[in-house]
Amino acid sequence: MRNIRLILAYDGTDFCGWQRQPDAPTIQACLEGALHKLTGAPSQVCGSGRTDAGVHAVYQVANFHTASTIPCANFVKALNNLLPPTVRIQRADDVGPTFHARFDVRRKTYRYRILMAPVCSPLLWRFVYHYPYHLNRERMAQAARHFEGEHDFTSFAAADGQADEETKSRVRAIFRSHLLWRPRSSLLIYEVTGKGFLRYMVRNIVGTLMEVGRGKLAPGEIPRILAACDRTQAGPTAPAQGLCLMKVEYQDMVIR
Amino acid sequence: MRNIRLILAYDGTDFCGWQRQPDAPTIQACLEGALHKLTGAPSQVCGSGRTDAGVHAVYQVANFHTASTIPCANFVKALNNLLPPTVRIQRADDVGPTFHARFDVRRKTYRYRILMAPVCSPLLWRFVYHYPYHLNRERMAQAARHFEGEHDFTSFAAADGQADEETKSRVRAIFRSHLLWRPRSSLLIYEVTGKGFLRYMVRNIVGTLMEVGRGKLAPGEIPRILAACDRTQAGPTAPAQGLCLMKVEYQDMVIR
Repeated sequence: MRNIRLILAYDGTDFCGWQRQPDAPTIQACLEGALHKLTGAPSQVCGSGRTDAGVHAVYQVANFHTASTIPCANFVKALNNLLPPTVRIQRADDVGPTFHARFDVRRKTYRYRILMAPVCSPLLWRFVYHYPYHLNRERMAQAARHFEGEHDFTSFAAADGQADEETKSRVRAIFRSHLLWRPRSSLLIYEVTGKGFLRYMVRNIVGTLMEVGRGKLAPGEIPRILAACDRTQAGPTAPAQGLCLMKVEYQDMVIR
Repeated sequence: MRNIRLILAYDGTDFCGWQRQPDAPTIQACLEGALHKLTGAPSQVCGSGRTDAGVHAVYQVANFHTASTIPCANFVKALNNLLPPTVRIQRADDVGPTFHARFDVRRKTYRYRILMAPVCSPLLWRFVYHYPYHLNRERMAQAARHFEGEHDFTSFAAADGQADEETKSRVRAIFRSHLLWRPRSSLLIYEVTGKGFLRYMVRNIVGTLMEVGRGKLAPGEIPRILAACDRTQAGPTAPAQGLCLMKVEYQDMVIR
């Protein structure tokens, strides 16, 4: 059996997230359907992680096992012919039998885009959260830095979220957490890189940073909110459409 | 009666063009429907020109007459609440009674985007023509310059296209016709500014430039094709989705 790694991108707007669900369009189901058509056999596609409904990816990584002899370059072309234009395979590679897209992840980077223009561009609305009000970007940037390091992220986890299956831990290591401002396009971008993320964690961080930007929280309150390990202390969950998976890195290689 | 000028943007993907048609979604019908709901009276919206099915605009200009007393800023907000996210009013202004969005146009600028990346990004596919093959950009740039000046564009008009109603002329003045290359995003952009354009003219120019890029035509053949006044001499019509109206300028003001 071959083990094939896929690098793919998607517009999550019209999908109910990554993970296969009965009677709902998902990226995983879309990929598995195309692979089944192409190879004539069912394949299970394993992603580097699940993205939620409405969340996008410009570089998601996945792998699947197959007995097919189709060359990798042909996999790219043939799958793209079968997939909708909102899901694109960027490349496919044969990898060693032990490669696992989820277990082997070393770092992941997400971006959350807030469009602060008065009116939302019809060319951008699928990929941004439109917020045409004042936000204090300097205070948000200060607050963002407090997430760097290893913390228990219980305050920023989904209320019903499960902890890590093995350790029941909600401790996660964040390598970088910062804001970018693109004045020409009025885009405020929150970028975060970490070993792994709890469900809704990035969107809950963004919701909390926006409370800081609105003046409802001080930047210095972030350490207290983290220490509280209490979801009610943090801000609301920011809408899915602003979030995009930008990069996934593995042990032996940097992908993208 | 007030005369209100609108500046608007749209993703043309899901529309059958600008102009109202029975039983087909168009930008004009969409706007007129929203205005009727808002003001309680029917209004006819006049655009700076018709865009074809699938063509986009980041700065289209239109005007309409109304007895409504709604302030302009509220028109923007209320219309955007009624319109789909693929159509956005950027601003609304009261203008003099004689302003006519179509007759008063001085210059229009279009861009046509060709994405030359091997795989089309799911974040861009609505707004580009994906062409993952070789094109000689230098030869295309040389050819593009030949369209500048005043020419009879019969060779580049829609085969069934009507000439100017008054003069039956297909002579049009092109002020600028050039190529831009964005290597980071693999985007080849054709930008053209003119007093006015015949139906399909920009897309027929792009289809012809692509023939030059593929080596099927020499750049120096453009003057001959123009002089022939014969549609069969030029290249095919490039697909609608790559085309976007970028700017409309009037006598007394530059809009955008």
